[in-house]
Amino acid sequence: MADIKATNITWHEGHATREERQQLLRQKGATLWFTGLSGSGKSTIAFTLEHALVQRGCLAYVLDGDNIRHGLNKNLGFSAADREENIRRIGEVAKLFADCGVLTMTSFISPYRKDRDTVRALHAAGNLPFIEVHVNTPIETCEQRDPKGLYKKARAGQLKGFTGIDDPYEAPTQPELTIDATATSPQEATVLLLQYLEKQGLISA
Amino acid sequence: MADIKATNITWHEGHATREERQQLLRQKGATLWFTGLSGSGKSTIAFTLEHALVQRGCLAYVLDGDNIRHGLNKNLGFSAADREENIRRIGEVAKLFADCGVLTMTSFISPYRKDRDTVRALHAAGNLPFIEVHVNTPIETCEQRDPKGLYKKARAGQLKGFTGIDDPYEAPTQPELTIDATATSPQEATVLLLQYLEKQGLISA
Repeated sequence: MADIKATNITWHEGHATREERQQLLRQKGATLWFTGLSGSGKSTIAFTLEHALVQRGCLAYVLDGDNIRHGLNKNLGFSAADREENIRRIGEVAKLFADCGVLTMTSFISPYRKDRDTVRALHAAGNLPFIEVHVNTPIETCEQRDPKGLYKKARAGQLKGFTGIDDPYEAPTQPELTIDATATSPQEATVLLLQYLEKQGLISA
Repeated sequence: MADIKATNITWHEGHATREERQQLLRQKGATLWFTGLSGSGKSTIAFTLEHALVQRGCLAYVLDGDNIRHGLNKNLGFSAADREENIRRIGEVAKLFADCGVLTMTSFISPYRKDRDTVRALHAAGNLPFIEVHVNTPIETCEQRDPKGLYKKARAGQLKGFTGIDDPYEAPTQPELTIDATATSPQEATVLLLQYLEKQGLISA
């Protein structure tokens, strides 16, 4: 394949660079990978951050169950292999968005360390920032909230392999950020995340 | 699933809308789907257009073999089922990019009408523009160019199921645009495409 790739690169001399898109957008693309239990508050924080970023003129986009599980990954189930492939594909798509210059938030339980580390390595190989955000709300709180009624179903045995009940959640060992959504409101979390993005030079202060 | 989706939408009240991103970017997202034989000039035109768009301040991104076949679709081969899944995934990713507000070019042979029409329907369902661009360079020219040496290999029987040799290319019946890259330079094609995008109100004149 090496020669094919080399030929393509010559052939596409005129293509725009990542740097040109960064200048256009006045920001750098990155993936903010939210991980945590169901009901931990990942999506609320991701969408609050998205809104805050767009309001200050930054291009941001959330990949979540709504636009992924019903689209790209609608042919995947919940077997071990399918869960791994689910995260792999999301990681690849997030990388493309980050390469395009978008501040990309992914909001998936993504319970396995190995899968998240694979996505991290993928971004490192492409020289793109990967920011792991652990939303570490205690399971008691998540289960009390139970916005989708999933814990109830899992406790009743109607859902098998549910993360935190009968399937493990492997917490990140070195996440870039940790947020306890019990003690931190989505707005407060958004402030912390914006400060982090500024500090990393991904958005201007 | 209906109740889950409804719950999510309430929960994500704060998320940014497609319209807000369009205002930010001063453009509308769309997919320009380039289809044509290997060596027809799809990628050269797509990348020339990308460059021209970025130079005038528009966010554009090309999905092609380099960033898709080595990434998202690296676990797909060239069987009939895998070819269909290849195009399906690319269509879903293009739709996400278009929803994000990006002018998205895809550059794949995509020889089967059914697969392209599925992607068209997917965009229609999401109320996103799908612009099919048929690069209809005659096969004699493509084979003469043979930038990757693939026709030579196919003629020698080293590549099976090669489009135009021993696998059909089903030309679009109603493409939004048709370009013969023999008679039209990449720069001329880019001018035509920019005019089309202006006329459709996707970029400002």
